[in-house]
Amino acid sequence: MSDTQRGLFLSLEGTEGAGKSSNLAWIKEVLDSHNKNVLLTREPGGTPLAEEIRELLLAPRKELVCENTELLLIFAARAQHFQSLILPTLEQGRWVVSDRFTDASFAYQGGGRNMSFDTIQQLETLVQGSLRPDLTILLDLPVELGMQRAAKRGALDRFEQEDLEFFARVREAYLSRAEQNPSRYAVVDASQSLASVQEHIRDVLERLILS
Amino acid sequence: MSDTQRGLFLSLEGTEGAGKSSNLAWIKEVLDSHNKNVLLTREPGGTPLAEEIRELLLAPRKELVCENTELLLIFAARAQHFQSLILPTLEQGRWVVSDRFTDASFAYQGGGRNMSFDTIQQLETLVQGSLRPDLTILLDLPVELGMQRAAKRGALDRFEQEDLEFFARVREAYLSRAEQNPSRYAVVDASQSLASVQEHIRDVLERLILS
Repeated sequence: MSDTQRGLFLSLEGTEGAGKSSNLAWIKEVLDSHNKNVLLTREPGGTPLAEEIRELLLAPRKELVCENTELLLIFAARAQHFQSLILPTLEQGRWVVSDRFTDASFAYQGGGRNMSFDTIQQLETLVQGSLRPDLTILLDLPVELGMQRAAKRGALDRFEQEDLEFFARVREAYLSRAEQNPSRYAVVDASQSLASVQEHIRDVLERLILS
Repeated sequence: MSDTQRGLFLSLEGTEGAGKSSNLAWIKEVLDSHNKNVLLTREPGGTPLAEEIRELLLAPRKELVCENTELLLIFAARAQHFQSLILPTLEQGRWVVSDRFTDASFAYQGGGRNMSFDTIQQLETLVQGSLRPDLTILLDLPVELGMQRAAKRGALDRFEQEDLEFFARVREAYLSRAEQNPSRYAVVDASQSLASVQEHIRDVLERLILS
């Protein structure tokens, strides 16, 4: 199958409370309206085994989870997701939209936990080879606002229990990834009204479809 | 704490049916008789989270487990085991004996699954830094004999379901690791009687204790 027939691969990123879930549904709606055959998926997760790994990762637990353990579990889940779901789906000509992908590892483990970006890059290459998303939409908003929104959702997972400084580093890492990859990234101001955010996202998607 | 006070780190390796379980108990008996304070542990596993990862790895499942997924899960479990159990125990001056360690990844994933030894080495360095076992006892025996012994144990896990050629590559990789690391490895002929195997192991351990 030639490259031109391969579907496009989109990822949606953002810190807590940025509105990923509602905007994921909106992305699908826009792409559907353009007759794209879209698979929505998420990380960590996306296959039965990867979802089991997700549960290990997110569960609050007494045992302190070492940083390397967390990073390797995330990439284990990603390897499974990428190889057995994302790649075959793209090769069928379908589009894939993933709620988080490798940029999240750079942001949360690299930025949030101060882990080595080089190590993350090595794991990225091991798992994905040279394939990267064709478009990454970053829902960006001030950390305090995001935390206020996220707090309304109830019980927090192991990541959501981190503090403001952690999420400030995550946001900064996302914004610096966006600066380094301007052609792949679309940064959307998620502090606006949902209608404005959706309008911005539709513009970005329609530019991609027409390109 | 100075290096001289650190406990020694031993690993026990071998293909299926080599008699690791009974010889692990024997190793503890010999070390106990020399008043060593020994922690017995195993891989994958050794901590609650690492044991949960072990269950994911060993469970027979319909979903095909990608090679990178398996390798990264093993190193995730190892990162947790190493950082939160092995290292602190050694630093307390206790000895650690692990039923399998990183040589098993070189043997099973590198040899058995033909994965890149370089990749495994990178992960080894990420997780362990420069620390390696002080002694690795390899219980070696012909693959057919090991399979016959293992078959008597009942239900097979996901690794035990592999074929003869797989285990032949695993054995070969173990033997070549032993050749490359002669000062660390003791190769024990596990096709002998249990009494002879135990005598050989006691000799190896007493040489290490007196060294």
